[in-house]
Amino acid sequence: MKNMLYIAGLLCLSAAHTFAQTKDPKDTEVWTPEPRVVTPGVNNSPPSDAIVLFDGANFSEWTTDSGESPKWALADEAMTVVKGAGDISTKRTFGDCQLHVEFRTPAVVKGEGQGRGNSGVFLQSRYEVQVLDNYQNRTYSNGQAGSIYKQTIPLVNACRPPDEWQTYDIFYTAPRFNADGIRTAPARVTVVHNGVLIQNGVEIQGTTEYIGMPKNLPHGKAPIRLQDHGDAVSYRNIWVREL
Amino acid sequence: MKNMLYIAGLLCLSAAHTFAQTKDPKDTEVWTPEPRVVTPGVNNSPPSDAIVLFDGANFSEWTTDSGESPKWALADEAMTVVKGAGDISTKRTFGDCQLHVEFRTPAVVKGEGQGRGNSGVFLQSRYEVQVLDNYQNRTYSNGQAGSIYKQTIPLVNACRPPDEWQTYDIFYTAPRFNADGIRTAPARVTVVHNGVLIQNGVEIQGTTEYIGMPKNLPHGKAPIRLQDHGDAVSYRNIWVREL
Amino acid sequence: MKNMLYIAGLLCLSAAHTFAQTKDPKDTEVWTPEPRVVTPGVNNSPPSDAIVLFDGANFSEWTTDSGESPKWALADEAMTVVKGAGDISTKRTFGDCQLHVEFRTPAVVKGEGQGRGNSGVFLQSRYEVQVLDNYQNRTYSNGQAGSIYKQTIPLVNACRPPDEWQTYDIFYTAPRFNADGIRTAPARVTVVHNGVLIQNGVEIQGTTEYIGMPKNLPHGKAPIRLQDHGDAVSYRNIWVREL
Amino acid sequence: MKNMLYIAGLLCLSAAHTFAQTKDPKDTEVWTPEPRVVTPGVNNSPPSDAIVLFDGANFSEWTTDSGESPKWALADEAMTVVKGAGDISTKRTFGDCQLHVEFRTPAVVKGEGQGRGNSGVFLQSRYEVQVLDNYQNRTYSNGQAGSIYKQTIPLVNACRPPDEWQTYDIFYTAPRFNADGIRTAPARVTVVHNGVLIQNGVEIQGTTEYIGMPKNLPHGKAPIRLQDHGDAVSYRNIWVREL
Repeated sequence: MKNMLYIAGLLCLSAAHTFAQTKDPKDTEVWTPEPRVVTPGVNNSPPSDAIVLFDGANFSEWTTDSGESPKWALADEAMTVVKGAGDISTKRTFGDCQLHVEFRTPAVVKGEGQGRGNSGVFLQSRYEVQVLDNYQNRTYSNGQAGSIYKQTIPLVNACRPPDEWQTYDIFYTAPRFNADGIRTAPARVTVVHNGVLIQNGVEIQGTTEYIGMPKNLPHGKAPIRLQDHGDAVSYRNIWVREL
Repeated sequence: MKNMLYIAGLLCLSAAHTFAQTKDPKDTEVWTPEPRVVTPGVNNSPPSDAIVLFDGANFSEWTTDSGESPKWALADEAMTVVKGAGDISTKRTFGDCQLHVEFRTPAVVKGEGQGRGNSGVFLQSRYEVQVLDNYQNRTYSNGQAGSIYKQTIPLVNACRPPDEWQTYDIFYTAPRFNADGIRTAPARVTVVHNGVLIQNGVEIQGTTEYIGMPKNLPHGKAPIRLQDHGDAVSYRNIWVREL
Repeated sequence: MKNMLYIAGLLCLSAAHTFAQTKDPKDTEVWTPEPRVVTPGVNNSPPSDAIVLFDGANFSEWTTDSGESPKWALADEAMTVVKGAGDISTKRTFGDCQLHVEFRTPAVVKGEGQGRGNSGVFLQSRYEVQVLDNYQNRTYSNGQAGSIYKQTIPLVNACRPPDEWQTYDIFYTAPRFNADGIRTAPARVTVVHNGVLIQNGVEIQGTTEYIGMPKNLPHGKAPIRLQDHGDAVSYRNIWVREL
Repeated sequence: MKNMLYIAGLLCLSAAHTFAQTKDPKDTEVWTPEPRVVTPGVNNSPPSDAIVLFDGANFSEWTTDSGESPKWALADEAMTVVKGAGDISTKRTFGDCQLHVEFRTPAVVKGEGQGRGNSGVFLQSRYEVQVLDNYQNRTYSNGQAGSIYKQTIPLVNACRPPDEWQTYDIFYTAPRFNADGIRTAPARVTVVHNGVLIQNGVEIQGTTEYIGMPKNLPHGKAPIRLQDHGDAVSYRNIWVREL
């Protein structure tokens, strides 16, 4: 009897040992945190957690540098740059975000290089994703549509012709600065132009400068800014998700 | 006269000096290389430089592990997993790429957790972006739709309901290995699920393993692979661009 | 006279034009911010901006989990693990930092694999850089000296023999989490072992776990922790610089 | 008896079940690849797998642009720039590497800003880690010692005084380019200056340019280059490890 139990005990140990060797797929499951639910958009509408910045109705989310309502043109669910009306900025400020922007360069093609359908989307009011009519229009590579202006050349030129709506889907990570005011992590950005990847998590060197070098002084959240470069570029269906 | 010239000369120097101080915007233009032109798709069609992996017509770009034509079902411009028919792989091999995949989980909802609408997209045959019906169906966070399976939790749950077509837009960078066979740069991936960013340039830890730890042995280009996990998940409109 | 001036004027324009074309090296100078001055150490002493965590004199910067002064042995400007005395942690908390640690595994070599000269340096109390006597002592690759324990294999094995002092120079960037509690940037670490690069800016997958998968729940600054794994590993000359 | 065995059997099952739930630490061990052994240096000597580029004996590893032996001065185990003798380059080419360099700026301090103790270490002949006597000598931040010249400001100024030997420990990852000639991954570099971290895995924007913008044209492995900037900067104990 005693032996019998002893043998049974050995069997137990043996079995247990075998089982201990069996790796359990549950070991590599992680249950927390649980991602929250977002309802994706349908027919080009924004996802459920997006802040709609412009849906064609009004300028309620936008302001000028002098704090006035933008004097851009509003028609057909789009807003269009009016030369001299100036840049416009969101009233809200943003850091890391997913940004969807639709834009259209003018039907009447005039000018060349940077002089054709020029505008821009400034992340944190400082870092420009260039908007330009580069359809059969050559300019410097680091200044073409989808470039990080005067910095990073897009992987390809995925422009649509003038007068057609185009999309930028932008995934943006803000820079970090330390207590000394030195940047310890650059801003990063991925840009998808009309469904084509043109910037793949590239580092932003610093502020966009027309003349001279990018700057890197500390800053926090800041508005998204759209540029009046004198050309009648239109925008519509702008939304942002904070990441 | 001499004085006049002298004065004119001074003006020259002065002007020149001023101009030399004037920073020239041309200094920060970069003209090479020039990105090549890609014509973006319209109405959900692929960009001009995409390799179409599946357009609904046939399995010409795909094979099974035994080198045969896939036995998945082909109907309505889609292909659907047939339980037991096995995984399918592209005949071509890929490294860095942009991959567009559309998928649909079964209309008849049965099972729960990992047992509902389970399939997967394997990058380089090794790294799985999970396909699952996670619409009102909880599973472990690192195993839900859009997770790097058993590794990285998606930022949000952006699933559509069963029987609706969904999209994955994947931007993938392959890992690097040194002469010692040690990985010196991890694979990285961005995943956009139904237009919502769910993986933002995340590092892939290593091979997808159902049991145990990711592995990191050296490899080169490899096929894209779709998983037969026994559920009748459908795929359509699959294309890839080499980056 | 008029002609003379006209000619002089042309010369001016010409010169100015030439000068305008001449790019100015000053254009690419950036003067702010100005990095602060740090006096580097001499003869293995800490830099001027380092917080000295241990110089051999006492445990004033350290505590146990129960809030007591460590019961580790103190002798010859070193502190040595006393089995059962438990892990010790800095009283201060840290995020991004440069950490210098010197350690020595026991002169009397006993045990094998993980059983020989085992200890560890935990960054933010969660992420372990393994300390082990791996001199002619094989263990699993992701558990050897200088591994991110159970995660990332070091590039090479740069161990010194037992009873010799060794160094870890660690450059650490803390992880980031978003408002949903999801990790948006992993911790990163570079480790230089006895002057040899063994981890080059690698991503830390999550918390160090002896059993199971790394976890990624949000946290802020946290102590640096040294492990009592039962072996009489010694430490000396520990300092940290906040980055 | 039978009952006894039955009970024992139940105990077995129970135990086995319990053990199956017990996760096994072996599950998270990874044994391959095994890092190769490197013997670290002692008393400032190179590690065993280093290629010694300069040990004070001769210029056997170096050449000038015209393919001649360098005309730099050789004395006291150091080599010193001779104004007009030109830059020198390694005969071997390198990509990813760990580079150790020791340098000394002249004892006789003359000049200011960039005019004092100026030289440079060029990675892949293109990307300069600046060498300069910045001890109590202000210059533009992105041009000081340890800057990625005209690009990235060092975290701090860790210079030693003139006539003292200083060290750069550089961990370098070469850029990647795709088939279109577009850069898909930037070069990255970590620089430790006299034991102090001054560049933490920063992205290199492109080629070092005295005037104008960094360039990014495709290239492969290339020599390490030391600059003759006219100042009698000395170098010694230079070694490199391929990563």
